Amino acid sequence: MPQPISNAYVRDLDRRYVFHSWSTQGNLDPLVIAGGQGCRLWDHDGREYLDFSSQLVFTNLGHQHPKVVAAIQAQAASLATVAPATANLMRGEAAKRIIARAPDGFAKVFFTNAGADANENAMRMARLFTGRPKILSAYRSYHGNTGAAIVATGEGRRLSNEYATGHVHFFGPYLYRSEFHAGSEQEECERALRHLRRVIESEGPSSIAAILLETVPGSVGILVPPAGYLQGVRALADEFGLLLILDEVMAGFGRCGSWLALERFDVVPDLITFAKGVNSGYVPAGGVMISARLCDFFETRYFPGGLTYSGHPLAMAAIVATLDAMHEEGVVENARQVGEEVLGPGLKALADRHAVIGEARGIGLFWALELVEDRQRRTPLPAAQMARIKARLLERGLIPFIVDNRIHVLPPCIVSAEEVRQALAIYDDVLGSL
Amino acid sequence: MPQPISNAYVRDLDRRYVFHSWSTQGNLDPLVIAGGQGCRLWDHDGREYLDFSSQLVFTNLGHQHPKVVAAIQAQAASLATVAPATANLMRGEAAKRIIARAPDGFAKVFFTNAGADANENAMRMARLFTGRPKILSAYRSYHGNTGAAIVATGEGRRLSNEYATGHVHFFGPYLYRSEFHAGSEQEECERALRHLRRVIESEGPSSIAAILLETVPGSVGILVPPAGYLQGVRALADEFGLLLILDEVMAGFGRCGSWLALERFDVVPDLITFAKGVNSGYVPAGGVMISARLCDFFETRYFPGGLTYSGHPLAMAAIVATLDAMHEEGVVENARQVGEEVLGPGLKALADRHAVIGEARGIGLFWALELVEDRQRRTPLPAAQMARIKARLLERGLIPFIVDNRIHVLPPCIVSAEEVRQALAIYDDVLGSL
Ligand SMILES: Cc1ncc(COP(=O)(O)O)c(C=O)c1O
Ligand SMILES: Cc1ncc(COP(=O)(O)O)c(C=O)c1O
Repeated sequence: MPQPISNAYVRDLDRRYVFHSWSTQGNLDPLVIAGGQGCRLWDHDGREYLDFSSQLVFTNLGHQHPKVVAAIQAQAASLATVAPATANLMRGEAAKRIIARAPDGFAKVFFTNAGADANENAMRMARLFTGRPKILSAYRSYHGNTGAAIVATGEGRRLSNEYATGHVHFFGPYLYRSEFHAGSEQEECERALRHLRRVIESEGPSSIAAILLETVPGSVGILVPPAGYLQGVRALADEFGLLLILDEVMAGFGRCGSWLALERFDVVPDLITFAKGVNSGYVPAGGVMISARLCDFFETRYFPGGLTYSGHPLAMAAIVATLDAMHEEGVVENARQVGEEVLGPGLKALADRHAVIGEARGIGLFWALELVEDRQRRTPLPAAQMARIKARLLERGLIPFIVDNRIHVLPPCIVSAEEVRQALAIYDDVLGSL
Repeated sequence: MPQPISNAYVRDLDRRYVFHSWSTQGNLDPLVIAGGQGCRLWDHDGREYLDFSSQLVFTNLGHQHPKVVAAIQAQAASLATVAPATANLMRGEAAKRIIARAPDGFAKVFFTNAGADANENAMRMARLFTGRPKILSAYRSYHGNTGAAIVATGEGRRLSNEYATGHVHFFGPYLYRSEFHAGSEQEECERALRHLRRVIESEGPSSIAAILLETVPGSVGILVPPAGYLQGVRALADEFGLLLILDEVMAGFGRCGSWLALERFDVVPDLITFAKGVNSGYVPAGGVMISARLCDFFETRYFPGGLTYSGHPLAMAAIVATLDAMHEEGVVENARQVGEEVLGPGLKALADRHAVIGEARGIGLFWALELVEDRQRRTPLPAAQMARIKARLLERGLIPFIVDNRIHVLPPCIVSAEEVRQALAIYDDVLGSL
């Protein structure tokens, strides 16, 4: 490696050897990142950025938190890795702390590497527990990108896992682009629940294992559910004997201004999946929080699921340190306060000022600006304009999170009121310059 | 946490809060592990073990290699995590080093968290490249435990990924329990290739994207393919226009006494999946090595796959340090030499002495003893006896790897001849005591 390292060297190495997710390889010019601290990142050439993406919405504790860095270093020095079938101190401590943040009645944690395999295993548990094949989930959802490795597997572990069929999708509430011709949040809620009931009845409740939902659908647009919706889903699950799985991979661990997003909606599921914020992504980790009822079932039944790095010590040490730091430093309270007092009102004020903002919606530090060509017809702003906005925000030193016609606004949960004000001024300028 | 930490404390925490892979939760009494060095591990109460499992066959560099530990600590201090869409120094350096170990004509690396998602993405690439749905793989194979998250996903990223059907399985060569009534390795090879040809013809070649094979099938029994088999598979793939994916998750990065297992069989696939040994599992990581032909295709085509922690800096730093240390310290050469001169001959000698060993087979430091009740009829040794063997090996201070009626023998690739001799003596005693 040359010394000092330059952006050009890193970009060239990347373009030559690294194949990127979700893209056409020929078009890429990735941002070079060398280091960071808190809400700031920088490259090798001295440029600094304010991170209002939390990367892929995972650095809830910000970059390079000293306590988490120290915990990773200490664990690396004592035992970086070990097989999942062993018992390991940090794994137990991490599980204990996660269960302490789960609703009453939750008992154990199954650890995975990330969000996709957390959902894989929650669905596996639901199917085994109920003995039913189908999973209902929302069209507007993202639950991860795995779908066939166990079906490609030939040996016996495949047989209890040929589950990739039986996935049925339904529409959730989204008043701004209502599927139900609703005129108010309450009407949207009632009609979305009636639609879900009709799907359950039409699919046959006795074939359905679980309803899988993001507590707040995230990458599809931060669709905060209307009051009563999740409780209505829970009631439908109970009525028809289905399990409820809440995916808190993106919404959990501070993002919504609460430890888990479900607290904001007063709903208790049977299984909760998590990843990202649980250790701010410092080491890959995810998992499933399992209610006592399901734990009891698996006391005497074989669980045919697993992965090499389940409960990886380095990831576990990062979870312990992250959750302790979040607690000690009031990070969740900060997310709630800065979200409610500064970011939310600030984005609503931007929406009042800029006709290009069709809707500003969110909760905690989990917000989206939906950009439209025409406020009346709500036509999404075209991709070329979104690309221009992205480039201008970057030029102004802000790392944005752009999906389709939306700017998702998701700073680390440690963000200060002052940093939010800086970012609001940048969004304001760039939207004003269109 | 109490000080000092005891085994009892850790085991209790584990049984209370941690849900384990591949098991009935009520029956567990997991081994407590506190720390390790090289081929040794120890618990909190001062007991030491010789690790002849490499955990789940991943600590190829042994435990706590100082250069890898230091690299993790340094990366943690500068930038623990970053989004995959960025360019990052260690990611480029890791990809460059991996490509240097791939056959000629390989160009880029797509990084994942582990083995399952490596195979997910290799299959995705093969299906996109060929435009065909089916994947052929062996009944005796394990490719990972994911199978539905993208199908549960509702938004558009599901549409290009509804792939979990179209998996067809066939039988590979395994002379000791031949599916083809063969009497020699050569006959087994010819008949297995004829069987594969018949499956391809019967499924319809124009519907098949790829053949996915472990270079040396691992967890199903370390089934070293006979001379010519993999070349025969490559020829069939070429004849019918299919891609060949080799899964080197377990067999790669030193295990077979070569950098990649495929070197021992003189075969070049189109895609290679890896995980485990690439960084000895110190930080979760896996990936796909992609040949130039497929890289060219994706220059202008969108790749609809991804994951939050693709190319995670901490994992990448561990890859760079691991591959550099393996090179500098001759770890692959050690695996080959100790395997060929000490472990292989030692296990063959045990098979001569103990009638319970039906077959001793392997390559490099990748060996299995197949235990039978009756050498003539080759009836597998029952589970209760295997459990007794496992307990006795542990009592003698050796961590074994037991699958069905087999002892897999897979020390770290840094193992010394002396440590192998110690282990052979323990296997000898325990098998003699049956
Ligand atoms: C709600 C949700 N679930 C699951 C996932 C998948 O997580 P991963 O990319 O870690 O597999 C994501 C990723 O963004 C997500 O937002
Ligand atoms: C050959 C092979 N492929 C894939 C996998 C899956 O890897 P992971 O458990 O990291 O998902 C394994 C795990 O043992 C394996 O042995």
